[in-house]
Amino acid sequence: MRPAELTPSQARAEFRAGLRTPTAGCSAGWTQANLLVLPRAQAYDFLLFAQRNPRSCPVLDVTEPGETAASIFDGDLRTDLPAYRVYRDGALVEELGDITGLWRDDLVSFLIGCSFTFEAALLEAGVPVRHLEQGRNVPMYRTNRECRPAGKLSGPLVVSMRPIPAEQVATAVRVTSRYPAVHGAPVHVGSPGELGVRDLDAPDFGEAVEVRPGEVPVFWACGVTPQAAVMRSAPPLAIGHAPGHMAITDARDSDHLVP
Amino acid sequence: MRPAELTPSQARAEFRAGLRTPTAGCSAGWTQANLLVLPRAQAYDFLLFAQRNPRSCPVLDVTEPGETAASIFDGDLRTDLPAYRVYRDGALVEELGDITGLWRDDLVSFLIGCSFTFEAALLEAGVPVRHLEQGRNVPMYRTNRECRPAGKLSGPLVVSMRPIPAEQVATAVRVTSRYPAVHGAPVHVGSPGELGVRDLDAPDFGEAVEVRPGEVPVFWACGVTPQAAVMRSAPPLAIGHAPGHMAITDARDSDHLVP
Repeated sequence: MRPAELTPSQARAEFRAGLRTPTAGCSAGWTQANLLVLPRAQAYDFLLFAQRNPRSCPVLDVTEPGETAASIFDGDLRTDLPAYRVYRDGALVEELGDITGLWRDDLVSFLIGCSFTFEAALLEAGVPVRHLEQGRNVPMYRTNRECRPAGKLSGPLVVSMRPIPAEQVATAVRVTSRYPAVHGAPVHVGSPGELGVRDLDAPDFGEAVEVRPGEVPVFWACGVTPQAAVMRSAPPLAIGHAPGHMAITDARDSDHLVP
Repeated sequence: MRPAELTPSQARAEFRAGLRTPTAGCSAGWTQANLLVLPRAQAYDFLLFAQRNPRSCPVLDVTEPGETAASIFDGDLRTDLPAYRVYRDGALVEELGDITGLWRDDLVSFLIGCSFTFEAALLEAGVPVRHLEQGRNVPMYRTNRECRPAGKLSGPLVVSMRPIPAEQVATAVRVTSRYPAVHGAPVHVGSPGELGVRDLDAPDFGEAVEVRPGEVPVFWACGVTPQAAVMRSAPPLAIGHAPGHMAITDARDSDHLVP
């Protein structure tokens, strides 16, 4: 079966059995999410940070401490993602295919929206998505804008960039603004310098993509923002998905569409 | 000056000076908000409850512990509302015009969206708002639907009801769905019995209004929901605004409009 045709539970079973692969293109129409696992002692600051920075940290679901499933994820959050990254005191210490051995009763899991959802909508609207065309990861940049801090959490806004033909910028804004739960409308159109982005060819995360004549760089708030903030605040333990190896949820992409 | 023409800071100065009056019609175009003040120890459960029940608990702003202003409220949250209600262990113990004497460094203030914002939009769209016509408080009902609990917090969904002429129900849905930060689209149209509401003339909160022939009762998630949950969970201290005596914020109603 092609990955796009797997149901979320079928895809999760494959990952649970050991398959370790990026999830782009998996389970078409089903929402993929960023995972962040934190001890309960750090959970309030993160939830408040997300409330204050909803564009970059759209929270889709939060577990009770110790719970290993979520209302939109009827699987096991410890085993059913293809790969995890473990951070201690803000530093990446290992990448694992299973975090059962690290599990504790005080761990809270956050599922955070990711822009895969609106990229499908952009394509449907005839707007090109360059990094998909080029088979690359989306380019992401640290900006000169600070997020609103919350408790001990602070960090810069991180943005993703997609080059959009000038005559389709309005369409791209219109389409993505209907998905506020997965970053929504762009935070900036054109003028990378104003965001403190000096060189589009040197992204801080992901890979550079081609910007063609007549195209405008359009910037969206990015799901790497919460990770950047969590890393700066250096909690004793934090676990995230490995980049590109997302949680495949039981929510439909269409659930996030506003009228 | 008429109350509608007061700027938010002028209105807050009047309340700070002792004016004790409901805020309906004050500072037209500026967002009014429900206030809930809780000790930091209870704040995570409430913030999570709100995240899980966004229709009834749309959080507009949250302070750091001890802060007396908020990003959308450039005043003093202890003095600048017309009246406050103080609850201890879930029981209402007093109503005050000023809570400075109760203030502590661990208190967190939540500002929560209220439906005044979308009522103005309904009127502009030509949809009648009966309780405004009749000069009454909106009728509110406890339903048989439980909110998603969070930690120690649980409670029933509370709804407000507005009778809408059948030919304008679609307009009312369309208009209010553009305001997700202030309860958004209805949760139920018609059929009060299915929500466990036996008698529209006997609301649990507020006042009954006339339902005319050809009108359909339309139900929206209500800002009383968080108070009902907080009261059931009986925190040692909680402070709210007195019903109808809202926080007048520096946010514009139009800030909450989605495309």
